[in-house]
Amino acid sequence: MSPRYANVSEREQEPPSLAISTVIFALRPDPDTGNLTLWLPLVRRIRQPYLDLWALPGGPLRPTESLQDAAARNLQETTALAPRYLEQLYAFGGPDRSPSPRVVSIVYWALVQPDEAALARQDENVAWFRADRVGTLAFDHNQIVEYALWRLRNKLEYGTVAYAFLGSTFTLAQVREVYEAVLGRALDPANFRRQLQSSVHIEPTDEYLQGGRHRPPRLYRYTGPDPRENSFPSQR
Amino acid sequence: MSPRYANVSEREQEPPSLAISTVIFALRPDPDTGNLTLWLPLVRRIRQPYLDLWALPGGPLRPTESLQDAAARNLQETTALAPRYLEQLYAFGGPDRSPSPRVVSIVYWALVQPDEAALARQDENVAWFRADRVGTLAFDHNQIVEYALWRLRNKLEYGTVAYAFLGSTFTLAQVREVYEAVLGRALDPANFRRQLQSSVHIEPTDEYLQGGRHRPPRLYRYTGPDPRENSFPSQR
Repeated sequence: MSPRYANVSEREQEPPSLAISTVIFALRPDPDTGNLTLWLPLVRRIRQPYLDLWALPGGPLRPTESLQDAAARNLQETTALAPRYLEQLYAFGGPDRSPSPRVVSIVYWALVQPDEAALARQDENVAWFRADRVGTLAFDHNQIVEYALWRLRNKLEYGTVAYAFLGSTFTLAQVREVYEAVLGRALDPANFRRQLQSSVHIEPTDEYLQGGRHRPPRLYRYTGPDPRENSFPSQR
Repeated sequence: MSPRYANVSEREQEPPSLAISTVIFALRPDPDTGNLTLWLPLVRRIRQPYLDLWALPGGPLRPTESLQDAAARNLQETTALAPRYLEQLYAFGGPDRSPSPRVVSIVYWALVQPDEAALARQDENVAWFRADRVGTLAFDHNQIVEYALWRLRNKLEYGTVAYAFLGSTFTLAQVREVYEAVLGRALDPANFRRQLQSSVHIEPTDEYLQGGRHRPPRLYRYTGPDPRENSFPSQR
Protein backbone atom coordinates (compact mmCIF):
# COMPACT_ATOMS: atom_id res chain seq x y z
CA MET A 1 0.00 0.00 0.00
CA SER A 2 1.51 3.33 -1.01
CA PRO A 3 0.93 6.24 1.37
CA ARG A 4 0.16 8.32 -1.70
CA TYR A 5 -3.12 6.59 -2.36
CA ALA A 6 -4.14 5.76 1.17
CA ASN A 7 -7.10 7.48 2.75
CA VAL A 8 -7.02 8.80 6.29
CA SER A 9 -8.12 5.66 8.06
CA GLU A 10 -5.77 3.51 6.00
CA ARG A 11 -2.89 5.82 6.85
CA GLU A 12 -3.76 5.54 10.52
CA GLN A 13 -3.22 1.80 10.26
CA GLU A 14 0.29 2.10 8.86
CA PRO A 15 3.03 1.32 11.35
CA PRO A 16 4.86 4.37 12.69
CA SER A 17 8.19 5.23 11.14
CA LEU A 18 11.23 6.26 13.08
CA ALA A 19 13.53 9.27 12.93
CA ILE A 20 16.44 10.62 14.96
CA SER A 21 16.64 14.33 15.77
CA THR A 22 19.17 16.39 17.69
CA VAL A 23 19.00 19.52 19.81
CA ILE A 24 22.42 21.12 20.06
CA PHE A 25 22.83 23.80 22.69
CA ALA A 26 25.85 26.09 22.70
CA LEU A 27 26.67 29.27 24.58
CA ARG A 28 27.50 32.22 22.35
CA PRO A 29 27.76 35.93 22.99
CA ASP A 30 24.65 37.88 22.05
CA PRO A 31 25.64 40.20 19.18
CA ASP A 32 23.78 43.15 20.77
CA THR A 33 24.76 42.89 24.43
CA GLY A 34 27.87 40.69 24.37
CA ASN A 35 26.32 38.55 27.16
CA LEU A 36 26.52 34.79 26.81
CA THR A 37 23.20 33.37 25.64
CA LEU A 38 21.96 29.95 24.64
CA TRP A 39 21.92 29.11 20.90
CA LEU A 40 21.04 26.13 18.75
CA PRO A 41 21.58 25.27 15.08
CA LEU A 42 18.56 24.65 12.82
CA VAL A 43 18.25 23.30 9.31
CA ARG A 44 15.99 24.73 6.62
CA ARG A 45 13.49 22.25 5.17
CA ILE A 46 14.13 21.87 1.46
CA ARG A 47 11.10 19.65 0.83
CA GLN A 48 7.50 19.14 1.89
CA PRO A 49 6.04 18.97 4.45
CA TYR A 50 6.92 22.30 6.05
CA LEU A 51 9.00 23.41 3.06
CA ASP A 52 11.22 26.42 3.97
CA LEU A 53 10.53 26.24 7.70
CA TRP A 54 13.44 25.66 10.09
CA ALA A 55 13.71 22.31 11.85
CA LEU A 56 16.00 20.39 14.17
CA PRO A 57 18.75 18.47 12.39
CA GLY A 58 17.73 14.86 11.92
CA GLY A 59 16.93 12.01 9.62
CA PRO A 60 16.26 8.30 9.39
CA LEU A 61 18.14 5.50 11.09
CA ARG A 62 20.45 3.47 8.85
CA PRO A 63 20.19 -0.32 8.99
CA THR A 64 23.43 -1.06 10.80
CA GLU A 65 23.88 1.94 13.09
CA SER A 66 22.85 2.36 16.73
CA LEU A 67 20.54 5.20 17.75
CA GLN A 68 23.47 7.10 19.26
CA ASP A 69 25.59 6.61 16.13
CA ALA A 70 22.71 7.86 13.97
CA ALA A 71 22.45 10.99 16.12
CA ALA A 72 26.20 11.61 15.92
CA ARG A 73 26.20 11.11 12.15
CA ASN A 74 23.26 13.48 11.65
CA LEU A 75 24.95 16.09 13.73
CA GLN A 76 28.21 15.68 11.85
CA GLU A 77 26.50 15.84 8.46
CA THR A 78 24.48 18.98 9.15
CA THR A 79 26.77 21.02 11.40
CA ALA A 80 30.21 19.35 11.12
CA LEU A 81 30.17 19.08 14.94
CA ALA A 82 31.26 16.02 16.97
CA PRO A 83 30.28 17.04 20.52
CA ARG A 84 31.74 15.28 23.54
CA TYR A 85 28.39 15.59 25.36
CA LEU A 86 25.72 13.77 23.36
CA GLU A 87 22.98 11.73 24.98
CA GLN A 88 19.43 10.62 24.48
CA LEU A 89 16.89 13.21 25.57
CA TYR A 90 13.42 11.79 24.94
CA ALA A 91 11.29 9.96 22.39
CA PHE A 92 8.41 11.99 20.96
CA GLY A 93 5.67 10.00 19.31
CA GLY A 94 2.21 11.48 19.77
CA PRO A 95 -0.25 10.43 17.06
CA ASP A 96 -0.75 14.05 15.90
CA ARG A 97 2.84 15.23 15.77
CA SER A 98 3.28 14.90 12.01
CA PRO A 99 1.21 14.25 8.91
CA SER A 100 0.48 10.51 8.87
CA PRO A 101 1.92 7.94 8.88
CA ARG A 102 3.08 8.74 12.35
CA VAL A 103 6.77 9.46 12.88
CA VAL A 104 8.30 8.65 16.25
CA SER A 105 11.40 10.80 16.82
CA ILE A 106 14.08 9.74 19.23
CA VAL A 107 15.73 13.01 20.19
CA TYR A 108 19.34 13.31 21.28
CA TRP A 109 20.84 16.43 22.73
CA ALA A 110 24.30 17.84 22.75
CA LEU A 111 25.79 20.49 25.01
CA VAL A 112 28.58 22.15 23.13
CA GLN A 113 31.48 24.08 24.57
CA PRO A 114 32.33 27.45 22.96
CA ASP A 115 35.50 26.10 21.34
CA GLU A 116 33.48 23.30 19.71
CA ALA A 117 30.64 25.62 18.63
CA ALA A 118 33.10 27.87 16.83
CA LEU A 119 33.82 24.99 14.45
CA ALA A 120 30.21 24.57 13.34
CA ARG A 121 29.30 24.88 9.70
CA GLN A 122 26.84 27.59 8.68
CA ASP A 123 25.34 28.20 5.25
CA GLU A 124 22.02 29.27 3.75
CA ASN A 125 20.37 26.07 5.02
CA VAL A 126 22.06 25.75 8.43
CA ALA A 127 21.91 28.66 10.88
CA TRP A 128 22.20 29.31 14.62
CA PHE A 129 19.26 30.79 16.51
CA ARG A 130 18.92 32.13 20.03
CA ALA A 131 17.09 29.36 21.92
CA ASP A 132 14.36 31.78 23.02
CA ARG A 133 13.87 33.20 19.49
CA VAL A 134 13.51 30.28 17.13
CA GLY A 135 10.20 31.38 15.56
CA THR A 136 7.78 28.79 14.19
CA LEU A 137 9.51 25.49 13.50
CA ALA A 138 8.45 22.49 11.40
CA PHE A 139 6.53 19.57 12.94
CA ASP A 140 6.36 19.74 16.76
CA HIS A 141 9.93 20.99 16.98
CA ASN A 142 8.93 24.05 19.03
CA GLN A 143 7.67 21.67 21.71
CA ILE A 144 10.85 19.64 21.54
CA VAL A 145 13.00 22.75 21.97
CA GLU A 146 10.81 23.86 24.86
CA TYR A 147 11.14 20.45 26.47
CA ALA A 148 14.93 20.47 26.05
CA LEU A 149 15.12 23.92 27.67
CA TRP A 150 13.01 22.67 30.57
CA ARG A 151 15.29 19.67 31.06
CA LEU A 152 18.36 21.89 30.84
CA ARG A 153 17.03 24.21 33.54
CA ASN A 154 16.24 21.22 35.74
CA LYS A 155 19.77 19.98 35.28
CA LEU A 156 21.08 23.21 36.76
CA GLU A 157 19.52 22.19 40.06
CA TYR A 158 21.68 19.11 40.16
CA GLY A 159 24.71 21.36 39.85
CA THR A 160 26.40 19.39 37.11
CA VAL A 161 25.18 20.76 33.81
CA ALA A 162 27.14 23.99 33.79
CA TYR A 163 30.35 22.03 33.52
CA ALA A 164 29.24 20.40 30.29
CA PHE A 165 29.46 23.87 28.72
CA LEU A 166 32.83 24.77 30.22
CA GLY A 167 36.35 23.49 29.75
CA SER A 168 38.24 21.48 32.34
CA THR A 169 38.96 24.63 34.38
CA PHE A 170 36.90 27.81 34.68
CA THR A 171 36.35 30.86 36.84
CA LEU A 172 33.36 31.26 39.13
CA ALA A 173 32.20 34.14 36.93
CA GLN A 174 32.13 31.78 33.92
CA VAL A 175 29.91 29.36 35.82
CA ARG A 176 27.57 32.24 36.66
CA GLU A 177 27.46 33.21 32.97
CA VAL A 178 26.31 29.68 32.09
CA TYR A 179 23.56 29.83 34.71
CA GLU A 180 22.48 33.26 33.50
CA ALA A 181 22.39 32.10 29.87
CA VAL A 182 20.34 29.00 30.65
CA LEU A 183 17.97 30.74 33.04
CA GLY A 184 17.71 33.83 30.87
CA ARG A 185 18.16 36.26 33.79
CA ALA A 186 20.92 37.99 35.73
CA LEU A 187 22.07 36.56 39.08
CA ASP A 188 23.63 38.39 42.00
CA PRO A 189 27.40 37.74 41.69
CA ALA A 190 28.18 37.71 45.43
CA ASN A 191 25.29 35.38 46.34
CA PHE A 192 26.01 33.09 43.45
CA ARG A 193 29.69 32.91 44.34
CA ARG A 194 28.88 32.03 47.93
CA GLN A 195 26.47 29.28 46.95
CA LEU A 196 28.85 27.85 44.42
CA GLN A 197 31.81 27.77 46.79
CA SER A 198 29.77 25.66 49.21
CA SER A 199 29.09 23.12 46.43
CA VAL A 200 30.88 19.83 46.88
CA HIS A 201 31.40 19.45 43.15
CA ILE A 202 34.04 22.10 42.43
CA GLU A 203 37.44 22.77 43.90
CA PRO A 204 39.98 25.56 43.43
CA THR A 205 43.13 24.94 41.41
CA ASP A 206 46.43 26.77 41.80
CA GLU A 207 45.95 28.44 38.44
CA TYR A 208 44.57 31.80 37.40
CA LEU A 209 42.87 32.99 34.24
CA GLN A 210 45.42 34.24 31.74
CA GLY A 211 44.97 37.72 30.33
CA GLY A 212 45.90 41.32 30.94
CA ARG A 213 43.97 41.85 34.15
CA HIS A 214 45.45 43.34 37.30
CA ARG A 215 43.96 40.65 39.59
CA PRO A 216 43.35 37.59 37.45
CA PRO A 217 40.54 35.34 38.82
CA ARG A 218 41.28 31.89 40.14
CA LEU A 219 40.46 28.82 38.06
CA TYR A 220 38.32 26.01 39.48
CA ARG A 221 37.85 22.40 38.45
CA TYR A 222 34.72 20.24 38.38
CA THR A 223 34.96 17.06 40.48
CA GLY A 224 31.34 15.82 40.48
CA PRO A 225 29.58 13.02 38.61
CA ASP A 226 29.40 12.86 34.83
CA PRO A 227 26.65 15.30 33.85
CA ARG A 228 25.24 12.84 31.28
CA GLU A 229 22.59 11.46 33.62
CA ASN A 230 20.94 9.23 31.03
CA SER A 231 23.83 7.35 29.54
CA PHE A 232 25.06 4.10 30.91
CA PRO A 233 28.85 4.19 30.93
CA SER A 234 28.84 1.52 28.19
CA GLN A 235 26.61 3.70 25.99
CA ARG A 236 29.07 6.59 25.98
CA MET B 1 7.86 -8.35 1.07
CA SER B 2 7.14 -10.75 3.88
CA PRO B 3 9.81 -11.08 6.58
CA ARG B 4 9.27 -14.84 6.34
CA TYR B 5 10.83 -15.08 2.90
CA ALA B 6 13.39 -12.32 3.14
CA ASN B 7 17.07 -13.18 3.28
CA VAL B 8 19.41 -11.52 5.75
CA SER B 9 20.40 -8.54 3.66
CA GLU B 10 16.80 -7.91 2.62
CA ARG B 11 15.71 -8.01 6.23
CA GLU B 12 18.41 -5.50 7.10
CA GLN B 13 16.85 -3.06 4.68
CA GLU B 14 13.41 -3.25 6.27
CA PRO B 15 12.51 -0.22 8.35
CA PRO B 16 12.71 -0.81 12.10
CA SER B 17 9.50 -1.54 13.92
CA LEU B 18 8.53 -0.03 17.21
CA ALA B 19 7.48 -1.49 20.54
CA ILE B 20 6.75 -0.18 24.01
CA SER B 21 8.07 -2.01 27.09
CA THR B 22 7.75 -1.31 30.78
CA VAL B 23 9.95 -1.94 33.80
CA ILE B 24 7.87 -1.90 36.98
CA PHE B 25 9.76 -1.71 40.24
CA ALA B 26 8.05 -2.38 43.54
CA LEU B 27 9.33 -2.94 47.04
CA ARG B 28 8.22 -6.21 48.60
CA PRO B 29 9.40 -8.15 51.62
CA ASP B 30 11.81 -10.94 50.81
CA PRO B 31 10.05 -14.21 51.74
CA ASP B 32 13.21 -15.54 53.45
CA THR B 33 14.44 -12.55 55.43
CA GLY B 34 11.39 -10.29 55.61
CA ASN B 35 13.59 -7.35 54.47
CA LEU B 36 12.22 -5.07 51.79
CA THR B 37 13.76 -5.87 48.42
CA LEU B 38 13.21 -4.65 44.88
CA TRP B 39 10.92 -6.72 42.65
CA LEU B 40 9.56 -6.49 39.12
CA PRO B 41 6.84 -8.36 37.22
CA LEU B 42 7.74 -10.34 34.10
CA VAL B 43 5.63 -11.99 31.44
CA ARG B 44 6.25 -15.43 29.97
CA ARG B 45 6.71 -15.49 26.18
CA ILE B 46 3.98 -17.65 24.66
CA ARG B 47 5.36 -17.46 21.13
CA GLN B 48 8.64 -17.37 19.22
CA PRO B 49 11.18 -15.88 19.37
CA TYR B 50 12.30 -16.73 22.90
CA LEU B 51 9.29 -18.98 23.54
CA ASP B 52 8.91 -19.71 27.30
CA LEU B 53 11.51 -17.18 28.43
CA TRP B 54 10.43 -14.34 30.70
CA ALA B 55 10.30 -10.81 29.29
CA LEU B 56 9.33 -7.29 30.24
CA PRO B 57 5.65 -6.52 29.68
CA GLY B 58 5.18 -4.73 26.37
CA GLY B 59 3.70 -4.67 22.93
CA PRO B 60 3.09 -2.57 19.86
CA LEU B 61 1.83 1.00 19.70
CA ARG B 62 -1.80 1.39 18.61
CA PRO B 63 -2.57 3.92 15.89
CA THR B 64 -4.25 6.57 18.01
CA GLU B 65 -2.48 6.33 21.36
CA SER B 66 0.49 8.28 22.65
CA LEU B 67 3.66 6.49 23.77
CA GLN B 68 2.76 7.09 27.42
CA ASP B 69 -0.80 5.82 26.90
CA ALA B 70 0.55 2.69 25.21
CA ALA B 71 2.84 2.04 28.19
CA ALA B 72 -0.03 2.53 30.65
CA ARG B 73 -2.31 0.23 28.65
CA ASN B 74 0.34 -2.50 28.42
CA LEU B 75 0.91 -2.30 32.13
CA GLN B 76 -2.79 -2.46 32.84
CA GLU B 77 -3.33 -5.40 30.50
CA THR B 78 -0.52 -7.52 31.87
CA THR B 79 -0.46 -6.68 35.57
CA ALA B 80 -3.75 -4.81 36.22
CA LEU B 81 -1.63 -1.98 37.68
CA ALA B 82 -2.17 1.73 37.04
CA PRO B 83 0.88 3.29 38.75
CA ARG B 84 0.98 6.95 39.65
CA TYR B 85 4.69 7.09 38.80
CA LEU B 86 5.15 6.17 35.14
CA GLU B 87 7.63 7.90 32.87
CA GLN B 88 9.81 7.31 29.88
CA LEU B 89 13.11 5.66 30.74
CA TYR B 90 15.05 5.21 27.51
CA ALA B 91 14.78 4.05 23.90
CA PHE B 92 16.76 0.92 23.06
CA GLY B 93 17.41 0.34 19.39
CA GLY B 94 20.76 -1.26 18.66
CA PRO B 95 20.84 -3.14 15.36
CA ASP B 96 21.56 -6.49 17.08
CA ARG B 97 19.03 -6.38 19.90
CA SER B 98 16.44 -8.66 18.28
CA PRO B 99 16.11 -10.97 15.30
CA SER B 100 15.62 -8.73 12.27
CA PRO B 101 13.83 -6.66 11.29
CA ARG B 102 15.13 -4.41 14.01
CA VAL B 103 12.76 -3.51 16.83
CA VAL B 104 13.25 -0.19 18.60
CA SER B 105 11.75 -0.38 22.11
CA ILE B 106 10.75 2.74 23.94
CA VAL B 107 10.92 1.70 27.57
CA TYR B 108 8.80 3.28 30.30
CA TRP B 109 9.32 2.63 33.97
CA ALA B 110 7.01 2.67 36.92
CA LEU B 111 7.87 2.90 40.59
CA VAL B 112 5.08 1.27 42.50
CA GLN B 113 4.16 1.80 46.12
CA PRO B 114 3.49 -1.30 48.25
CA ASP B 115 -0.27 -0.65 48.38
CA GLU B 116 -0.34 -0.53 44.58
CA ALA B 117 1.89 -3.59 44.15
CA ALA B 118 -0.45 -5.65 46.33
CA LEU B 119 -3.16 -5.22 43.67
CA ALA B 120 -1.08 -6.70 40.85
CA ARG B 121 -2.35 -9.72 38.94
CA GLN B 122 -0.26 -12.90 39.00
CA ASP B 123 -0.87 -16.11 37.09
CA GLU B 124 1.18 -18.75 35.31
CA ASN B 125 2.29 -16.24 32.69
CA VAL B 126 2.83 -13.18 34.91
CA ALA B 127 5.12 -13.42 37.93
CA TRP B 128 7.18 -11.15 40.18
CA PHE B 129 10.95 -11.62 40.39
CA ARG B 130 13.56 -10.14 42.67
CA ALA B 131 15.31 -7.51 40.53
CA ASP B 132 18.71 -9.09 41.17
CA ARG B 133 17.49 -12.63 40.35
CA VAL B 134 15.65 -12.45 37.05
CA GLY B 135 17.63 -15.17 35.27
CA THR B 136 18.03 -15.08 31.49
CA LEU B 137 15.39 -12.92 29.86
CA ALA B 138 14.20 -12.70 26.26
CA PHE B 139 15.76 -10.23 23.79
CA ASP B 140 18.09 -7.69 25.47
CA HIS B 141 15.80 -7.39 28.47
CA ASN B 142 18.56 -8.25 30.95
CA GLN B 143 20.42 -5.18 29.74
CA ILE B 144 17.28 -3.06 30.04
CA VAL B 145 16.70 -4.22 33.63
CA GLU B 146 20.35 -3.55 34.44
CA TYR B 147 20.08 -0.07 32.93
CA ALA B 148 16.89 0.66 34.90
CA LEU B 149 18.61 -0.42 38.14
CA TRP B 150 21.53 1.84 37.34
CA ARG B 151 19.23 4.80 36.74
CA LEU B 152 17.32 4.02 39.92
CA ARG B 153 20.52 4.00 41.99
CA ASN B 154 21.57 7.29 40.42
CA LYS B 155 18.22 8.77 41.34
CA LEU B 156 18.92 8.02 45.00
CA GLU B 157 21.71 10.57 44.85
CA TYR B 158 19.25 13.27 43.97
CA GLY B 159 17.34 12.41 47.12
CA THR B 160 13.94 12.28 45.46
CA VAL B 161 13.40 8.74 44.28
CA ALA B 162 12.74 7.11 47.64
CA TYR B 163 9.56 9.12 47.96
CA ALA B 164 8.14 7.62 44.78
CA PHE B 165 8.03 4.30 46.63
CA LEU B 166 6.49 5.67 49.81
CA GLY B 167 3.13 7.18 50.68
CA SER B 168 2.57 10.84 51.48
CA THR B 169 4.03 10.36 54.98
CA PHE B 170 6.66 7.90 56.18
CA THR B 171 9.12 7.24 58.96
CA LEU B 172 12.86 7.75 58.59
CA ALA B 173 13.31 3.99 58.97
CA GLN B 174 11.02 3.43 55.98
CA VAL B 175 13.18 5.74 53.86
CA ARG B 176 16.25 3.78 54.93
CA GLU B 177 14.53 0.53 53.91
CA VAL B 178 13.96 1.95 50.41
CA TYR B 179 17.63 2.92 50.13
CA GLU B 180 18.72 -0.50 51.38
CA ALA B 181 16.42 -2.29 48.92
CA VAL B 182 17.63 -0.27 45.94
CA LEU B 183 21.30 -0.39 46.88
CA GLY B 184 21.11 -4.01 47.95
CA ARG B 185 23.08 -3.46 51.19
CA ALA B 186 22.49 -2.47 54.79
CA LEU B 187 23.09 1.12 55.92
CA ASP B 188 24.02 2.37 59.36
CA PRO B 189 20.72 3.61 60.89
CA ALA B 190 22.21 6.46 62.96
CA ASN B 191 24.35 7.85 60.12
CA PHE B 192 21.53 7.54 57.65
CA ARG B 193 19.10 9.29 59.98
CA ARG B 194 21.53 12.17 60.50
CA GLN B 195 22.11 12.63 56.77
CA LEU B 196 18.43 12.46 56.00
CA GLN B 197 17.44 14.98 58.63
CA SER B 198 19.82 17.51 57.11
CA SER B 199 18.11 17.06 53.72
CA VAL B 200 16.09 20.05 52.61
CA HIS B 201 13.47 17.84 50.98
CA ILE B 202 11.73 16.31 54.00
CA GLU B 203 10.07 17.83 57.03
CA PRO B 204 8.58 16.35 60.19
CA THR B 205 4.80 16.23 60.63
CA ASP B 206 2.94 16.21 63.96
CA GLU B 207 1.87 12.61 63.36
CA TYR B 208 3.27 9.28 64.50
CA LEU B 209 3.12 5.83 62.96
CA GLN B 210 0.06 3.95 64.17
CA GLY B 211 0.55 0.54 65.73
CA GLY B 212 1.13 -1.15 69.01
CA ARG B 213 4.62 0.18 69.74
CA HIS B 214 5.65 1.79 72.99
CA ARG B 215 7.37 4.76 71.31
CA PRO B 216 5.80 5.14 67.87
CA PRO B 217 8.16 6.81 65.35
CA ARG B 218 7.41 10.23 63.91
CA LEU B 219 6.04 10.58 60.38
CA TYR B 220 7.77 12.83 57.85
CA ARG B 221 6.59 14.38 54.60
CA TYR B 222 8.41 14.90 51.29
CA THR B 223 8.54 18.53 50.14
CA GLY B 224 11.04 18.37 47.23
CA PRO B 225 10.60 18.42 43.46
CA ASP B 226 8.55 15.84 41.58
CA PRO B 227 10.78 12.78 41.30
CA ARG B 228 9.75 12.22 37.67
CA GLU B 229 12.72 14.06 36.22
CA ASN B 230 11.95 13.26 32.62
CA SER B 231 8.34 14.23 32.27
CA PHE B 232 7.28 17.67 31.28
CA PRO B 233 4.34 18.64 33.50
CA SER B 234 2.06 18.50 30.43
CA GLN B 235 3.17 14.90 29.73
CA ARG B 236 2.01 13.64 33.14
